[in-house]
Amino acid sequence: MYNSIGDKFSKRANEIRRSPIRELLKLITKPEIISFAGGIPDPTLFPAYLIEEATKTILREEPEKVLQYGPTEGDIRLKMELIKRQQRRNNIKINEDEILITTASQQALDLMGKIFIDSGDTVIVGLPSYLGGLGAFHSYGAEFIGIPLDEDGMRVDLIEEKLKKLKKEQIKKIKFIYVIPDFQNPAGVTLSLERRKKLIKIAKKHDLLILEDTPYRELRYWNKSIPPIFLLAPRGRVVTLFTFSKVFCPGMRLGYVLGSENVIDRLVVAKQSTDLCTPPFTQGILCEMLKGGALDEHIKKLVSVYREKREYMLNVLNKYMLPLNLPDLNWTRPDGGLFLWMTLPAYMDTELMFPRALEKKIAYVKGCAFHYDNSGKNTMRLNFSYPTMDSIDEGIRRLSQVIAGEIRK
Amino acid sequence: MYNSIGDKFSKRANEIRRSPIRELLKLITKPEIISFAGGIPDPTLFPAYLIEEATKTILREEPEKVLQYGPTEGDIRLKMELIKRQQRRNNIKINEDEILITTASQQALDLMGKIFIDSGDTVIVGLPSYLGGLGAFHSYGAEFIGIPLDEDGMRVDLIEEKLKKLKKEQIKKIKFIYVIPDFQNPAGVTLSLERRKKLIKIAKKHDLLILEDTPYRELRYWNKSIPPIFLLAPRGRVVTLFTFSKVFCPGMRLGYVLGSENVIDRLVVAKQSTDLCTPPFTQGILCEMLKGGALDEHIKKLVSVYREKREYMLNVLNKYMLPLNLPDLNWTRPDGGLFLWMTLPAYMDTELMFPRALEKKIAYVKGCAFHYDNSGKNTMRLNFSYPTMDSIDEGIRRLSQVIAGEIRK
Repeated sequence: MYNSIGDKFSKRANEIRRSPIRELLKLITKPEIISFAGGIPDPTLFPAYLIEEATKTILREEPEKVLQYGPTEGDIRLKMELIKRQQRRNNIKINEDEILITTASQQALDLMGKIFIDSGDTVIVGLPSYLGGLGAFHSYGAEFIGIPLDEDGMRVDLIEEKLKKLKKEQIKKIKFIYVIPDFQNPAGVTLSLERRKKLIKIAKKHDLLILEDTPYRELRYWNKSIPPIFLLAPRGRVVTLFTFSKVFCPGMRLGYVLGSENVIDRLVVAKQSTDLCTPPFTQGILCEMLKGGALDEHIKKLVSVYREKREYMLNVLNKYMLPLNLPDLNWTRPDGGLFLWMTLPAYMDTELMFPRALEKKIAYVKGCAFHYDNSGKNTMRLNFSYPTMDSIDEGIRRLSQVIAGEIRK
Repeated sequence: MYNSIGDKFSKRANEIRRSPIRELLKLITKPEIISFAGGIPDPTLFPAYLIEEATKTILREEPEKVLQYGPTEGDIRLKMELIKRQQRRNNIKINEDEILITTASQQALDLMGKIFIDSGDTVIVGLPSYLGGLGAFHSYGAEFIGIPLDEDGMRVDLIEEKLKKLKKEQIKKIKFIYVIPDFQNPAGVTLSLERRKKLIKIAKKHDLLILEDTPYRELRYWNKSIPPIFLLAPRGRVVTLFTFSKVFCPGMRLGYVLGSENVIDRLVVAKQSTDLCTPPFTQGILCEMLKGGALDEHIKKLVSVYREKREYMLNVLNKYMLPLNLPDLNWTRPDGGLFLWMTLPAYMDTELMFPRALEKKIAYVKGCAFHYDNSGKNTMRLNFSYPTMDSIDEGIRRLSQVIAGEIRK
């Protein structure tokens, strides 16, 4: 038996954090648990029949292409579909060397870490922020500067304050600002137009790159769309990540990156040694779904169902939480996406409370998981896309009982 | 415009090498070129109809599962199929915590680099060796010790010699021995049983891990199978990579790793931040193909076609190369896999020769691409699985003309 393997692991391996959500999701697979935990689409809405048809088409028309290795850059026809779509939906004009297909946006986050972060470099992130991003950057040795959020998203005015306290050398080690502008994960808040512009100004002034991650952009249920930071900024200042996990299905792991040719080229070279290419088979299916307009139709359906679920979630929160009469208990009212964010009285701890929630057969994600500094003890993320309407009602009822049990008399 | 981005890239990004094969494959997509370059399966053999049927089944039976996120460890049913298959085919007995599904074996190589290699650590590799492996390890800052091959695979007797010259501190920085025992890529040679045992002895003595990469193991056309190093060694000494790229199709990017629970757990944590999970959709299709035995039938067909192609390739090499009357021109006679390896007279340079080959509309991979130290100038890799029989004849005829043009009078 080989016992000394522990000495062989890289420093990195000893530092990489286990994802609290991936671990949590393993725990809560029992059907009797009502889960507000995952960032998981409603499985009853998956377009299985459309996928079956698209698969049949590509397997009959070009099996030798979709079952073979493909270019690391991504299938050119899929890229052209996405370029047209970006122009149509977001008024973003890019060429084929400014886009890279990735194995969903988690891979893009990993590759961004790989090409930008040396151990000890800094990334500016939201407090809270998407933990898959924090995990990917941390795995390359990133350190973080945290910027709080309010109902208009990241408090970009606080970035300058933080920067003022840093020496020039320290600012140089800041590799990018990681921001999720639309219906942020986990907080559900949206970065206002004014703040987007301000963020770009700060990035220019201090020569910082912006990493814009926008997985939910097309899932807007309320108010008007705000232009992507990519569109508002000068070319090269922003790298933007999109994914099809929420608007199509997570089970195919498909996403893409927009950036300057220089950055895309570096990402391509890093991807060559990471997975050679994203599966041409699943790229082909997505391309087929985009070409015929089937995916756009599907997204309309998603938006209408999720809009109702969001509305319902907010209603039952009022119904069960207001009677608790806790002035410090509040939650965000997201314009889109999959999540809302709940803040409990400061003395409550959602990590300690979690076993009590599990006893009542409900689950959420503790807010501290989204804070690189482990703060946010009294917060939690609640997902409303996955549970059924009945489960939303029953689950929030039970959650209100759990919270009631925490109240200090 | 943002011009200073170049200063922001990580040291790693500035060191990662562009894959010569990925770049080459982009150049030679013209249909008039006869390519012996890629490690590419024969596209006329892809089991498109079986895939269509398997897709239909999984989409009708459990769309909510195969289109959703899955565990990072891999789909449990697929893992159970692979465990049964390993026991049946290789007599390897493992449990479900000793296996991880990966996005093909390139991801496994990347993750092995991620969890084992700190910048400056050493990996022992074949001279030549698979360049995707070299690239992945190099991207984490690995340095290499190269061990030449002969017709029985890696000259493991030379490892001890090399180690003797190193100080204890330097040996400690050797993270693993990377070996491709069956029909090695690129050389096509197979590590003998005796050498496998010797390799294990050396690894034990110097406390080294063995990384066994065996993508072609099931594609044997000649002679008897030799047990995997994983089976021959004590548990924990070996991590073994398998892929379905060659025996099923590359376009789904599916592979798996066998290792001790400890190593698999580290790989899982690293994979969490790399791509969350390998697509459950493609895992479901593979599982379906394995369950019904369809894949095993398919592999039998592959073996019979590739056996003929190998035979034909060796015949036309005799036909066209022997008349050149060059005693220093020779090639390996692989028992399986996709490649053979040609050595030209020492004064020839396959890199300089390449433009002349392209003029004659043929392509190969220059041998130096597989040597981390850029040696092997007079060697090349020739693939026989992709071209048709007619192309093999015509292509080798043209290659003999190209080589004839290099002869020093």
